[in-house]
Amino acid sequence: MSKQISMPVIRRLPRYHRFLTELQDQGIERVSSNQLANIMRSTASQIRQDLNCFGGFGQQGYGYPVAQLRDQIGKILGIDQGFKAILLGAGNLGRAIATHMNFSRQGFELTAVFDKNEDVIGTMLRGITVMSDDNIESYIKDNRVDAAFLCLPKNSVKPLIDKLYSLGIKNFWNFSHYDIKNDYNDVIVENVHLSDSLMTLCYRINEQHTDN
Amino acid sequence: MSKQISMPVIRRLPRYHRFLTELQDQGIERVSSNQLANIMRSTASQIRQDLNCFGGFGQQGYGYPVAQLRDQIGKILGIDQGFKAILLGAGNLGRAIATHMNFSRQGFELTAVFDKNEDVIGTMLRGITVMSDDNIESYIKDNRVDAAFLCLPKNSVKPLIDKLYSLGIKNFWNFSHYDIKNDYNDVIVENVHLSDSLMTLCYRINEQHTDN
Repeated sequence: MSKQISMPVIRRLPRYHRFLTELQDQGIERVSSNQLANIMRSTASQIRQDLNCFGGFGQQGYGYPVAQLRDQIGKILGIDQGFKAILLGAGNLGRAIATHMNFSRQGFELTAVFDKNEDVIGTMLRGITVMSDDNIESYIKDNRVDAAFLCLPKNSVKPLIDKLYSLGIKNFWNFSHYDIKNDYNDVIVENVHLSDSLMTLCYRINEQHTDN
Repeated sequence: MSKQISMPVIRRLPRYHRFLTELQDQGIERVSSNQLANIMRSTASQIRQDLNCFGGFGQQGYGYPVAQLRDQIGKILGIDQGFKAILLGAGNLGRAIATHMNFSRQGFELTAVFDKNEDVIGTMLRGITVMSDDNIESYIKDNRVDAAFLCLPKNSVKPLIDKLYSLGIKNFWNFSHYDIKNDYNDVIVENVHLSDSLMTLCYRINEQHTDN
C-alpha cells in the first residue's frame, strides 16, 4: 500500500507526526481536519486526502483520534524499527549532530562513529568511542549497519562511499555536498544541504519572496 | 522579472551554482544542457527551461559559458549582498553551524551571537564574543541586522521571535522545530528540520523507496 504514497505526502508525514505529538502532549484527544489544516498550513481537503492515503481515519464530524493517528503515522514512518546507523565524520558538524539529535525518535540508533583525524580518534561522542576510518570495513562485517550518516568534507566522501557501497551500505543521511545519487542509482539518500538552504534564504530576502 | 520565478526553480539555483563553481574550478569553460542535465539529474529540456527563466543564455550547439552563467545565478541569488546575520543559540548545533559554514559564499556575514546560558556568554565563536540574550534589543537598534539564524530549543523560540519581529527582523534561518510562519505571515523562513529529514530517511529505508 504505502509504496504508492508519493514523495510529497511522505515528506509531510514527519510534520504530521511532530504536530500530533505536541497535541498529545497537551492532552488533546481528537483533532479536526480544519485544526490540522491550520497547524500544517494546508487545507482541510488536503489533510483528508493525505490521511486517506494510509487508511480511513476520522469520522465525519468527530475528527481524528490524536494518539491513534500519531501511532499509525509512526508505524508508516517505521520509527519503531531501530535501524542501526554509523556516523562518518566527528568534526564540528558530526559532533553537533550526534549531540543534538535524539535519533531513537526518528527510528535510528547510533552505534559507531568514525573519523580519520588522529586528534579525534579515541575521544568520546554520545558515549561512543570514535574509531579510525581504518576500522570501518571490519565493523560493518561484524555488525548490522542499516545506514551511514555523512558529516564529511566533500572531497573525503567519494572513496568512503565506494567502500560503504561495496560493503552493502546503501542508505545515507548526507550532510556533505557530494552527490551520491550520481554514482549509485540504487541508494537511498536524504541530503541536508545547509549551504543550499542558506543561499535560498539569501535569494528570498533579496527578492522579498515570502512564499514557501 | 525574478519575482515570477517559481519556488521549485529557486530551490534548484543553489545547486546550479554549486555545480557551476565545480566546473569552473576544473577549468571547464562551456557546458551543454545535456551535461548540466546529467549533473543535476534532470533533463536537458528542464535545464533550458530553468535557465530561460532568467534571461537567454547559451547558444544552440555551443552550450552555456560556465563563468558567466555562474556569476549570473550568483547575482540572481543575491549572494553578493553581504546580508548581516545574527545567531541565536550557541549550543552544540549553533557552534557547529557557525564553525562549519562559510556564510559569505551564501550571501551572509555573521556579525553577532547570542545565548542565555551563562557558561557560554563571553566565550568566542568564529572570532565573535557570545553575548547575553539581554543584549539582543540594543544590538538590533544599533546595528543593521538582515536575518536571524535560530539554533534554539523549540520552547525558547516563541518569546525571542516575538521580540525580533517587534524589532523589525523578519528573515529567519530556522533550525528549531518552532513553526514561525504560523505566527507571522509576512516573514521569510528557511527551515532546516533535521528530525523530519531523518524520519523521511527512516521511512524510505523501511519501504526501500529509492526515488527522491
